[in-house]
Amino acid sequence: MRFGRVAVIGVGLIGGSFALALKKAGAASHIVGVGRSEQNLGLALERGIIDEAERDAARAAASADLVLVASPVAQFPQILARIGGVLKPEAVLTDGGSTKRDVVRAAREALGPRVAQFVPAHPIAGAEKSGAAAATAELFRDRRVILTPLPENGEAAVARVREAWSACGARLSVMNPEDHDAVLAAVSHLPHVLAYALVHDIARRGNAAELFGLAAGGFRDFTRIASSHPEMWRDICLANRDRILEETKRFRAALSDVEALIEAGQGEALEKLFAGAREARDAWIRSS
Amino acid sequence: MRFGRVAVIGVGLIGGSFALALKKAGAASHIVGVGRSEQNLGLALERGIIDEAERDAARAAASADLVLVASPVAQFPQILARIGGVLKPEAVLTDGGSTKRDVVRAAREALGPRVAQFVPAHPIAGAEKSGAAAATAELFRDRRVILTPLPENGEAAVARVREAWSACGARLSVMNPEDHDAVLAAVSHLPHVLAYALVHDIARRGNAAELFGLAAGGFRDFTRIASSHPEMWRDICLANRDRILEETKRFRAALSDVEALIEAGQGEALEKLFAGAREARDAWIRSS
Repeated sequence: MRFGRVAVIGVGLIGGSFALALKKAGAASHIVGVGRSEQNLGLALERGIIDEAERDAARAAASADLVLVASPVAQFPQILARIGGVLKPEAVLTDGGSTKRDVVRAAREALGPRVAQFVPAHPIAGAEKSGAAAATAELFRDRRVILTPLPENGEAAVARVREAWSACGARLSVMNPEDHDAVLAAVSHLPHVLAYALVHDIARRGNAAELFGLAAGGFRDFTRIASSHPEMWRDICLANRDRILEETKRFRAALSDVEALIEAGQGEALEKLFAGAREARDAWIRSS
Repeated sequence: MRFGRVAVIGVGLIGGSFALALKKAGAASHIVGVGRSEQNLGLALERGIIDEAERDAARAAASADLVLVASPVAQFPQILARIGGVLKPEAVLTDGGSTKRDVVRAAREALGPRVAQFVPAHPIAGAEKSGAAAATAELFRDRRVILTPLPENGEAAVARVREAWSACGARLSVMNPEDHDAVLAAVSHLPHVLAYALVHDIARRGNAAELFGLAAGGFRDFTRIASSHPEMWRDICLANRDRILEETKRFRAALSDVEALIEAGQGEALEKLFAGAREARDAWIRSS
């Protein structure tokens, strides 16, 4: 048993899957789940994701050897402030937040010197499903988890947190929070914003029913991420707003390139642009 | 045997799947495939998609009872001009083009009074794969095929073309070409343009490898349609350019709504917009 008592704060897709994966790996003896929704916690107990439900993050964290904070990122300041004072000195803390600069800032403010026990992480394993109902022990299997260790972290804390995510089957990478937020803005946050904007635009039209009626597989896959958790994505957009707005600006410029070719009827250049995009994507798919 | 000899001009995903579906339904006795690529025609013969390969569209069409034109739409004027003079008077002609105003215009010009034999169709069954290699007898099963019959069509011609697509397992709808092109611009052409633009923008950056390296399932699905056939999409974009440019303009306005909320930090309104989009998409998924 590599960890004894584990506290999972936010038993949704990420938190619930972390709990299930640790259990499956035999890496945790007792898991306490903390959440805002009685119903979701009840389901987590029923599914055997957690052994105990708790409404108070401080009570759950006080006896834990490992704590995962997996709530939407806007709740981090409050949660970290609650648990900062009660953490056991040998406990380690990690998270599942999709943005890292704001999480690190909140952790430094809330935890003070105990921030040394916090090794931030971002599992690149989202899905458009959310809640304990969607959790699975295999969510992180062979998926990348990015760690953004802090200068304050000791080697032992980083090693313990690595051990936890590795037990979930994840492949680990290390980045700094600034690079993380810039890269994820481009390949994750921007596509989510675009997908939400497209569905928003279709849904508000007078002929929305006719439009959806003729939408097919391409539309379904393109907009899958518009079925993602609205609160989680609200928090990501606000936490990473500067990077995301840089990305939407860049995207507008790329879209202008395509529009200009269409408008001017420049078929050859348009086909070349499309072929280049296809080639780049296909090469990525082959290599991933 | 509902059709005897069938000519399929363009034995790609759509043409090849049409041939396979008709064969599987026992609705064709002999299928001639016409194409520009020897290699693709060879594969179509090898896979039993077609019984005979032919380089000349006119020779293939002259003896056919049913002709499908399934090439990229920019080739229609030339192909229709080749076959217009040789069609048997009782033969019927349909197509698989993704745009309809340009196809109808080309058909009227090329076919003259024989346009009465042409019942335009658009199978809503694309995929990012292309060529005879990707063809399958089940591609149209329970998928929608939109017919845009012409005032010139007799009832018998429309009935024959309906019969052909129904034999492929398709569900048939009827629209006029103008509405078709407007609706498809919104739910198909626009998403393709956005996906191509996004991959174009990522691929041309200095740190493209790092960006692709951290792209995950959301990015994969969002960009799946950027692996579509570049020539086919070039033709669609040029044929339907006015409608597509209207849609990119609308999309920019919707994106501005999201950007403004992010910039102003209006979390509540942002979450409401995301939740509305998710609800609309989920309702569509449940009903489709």
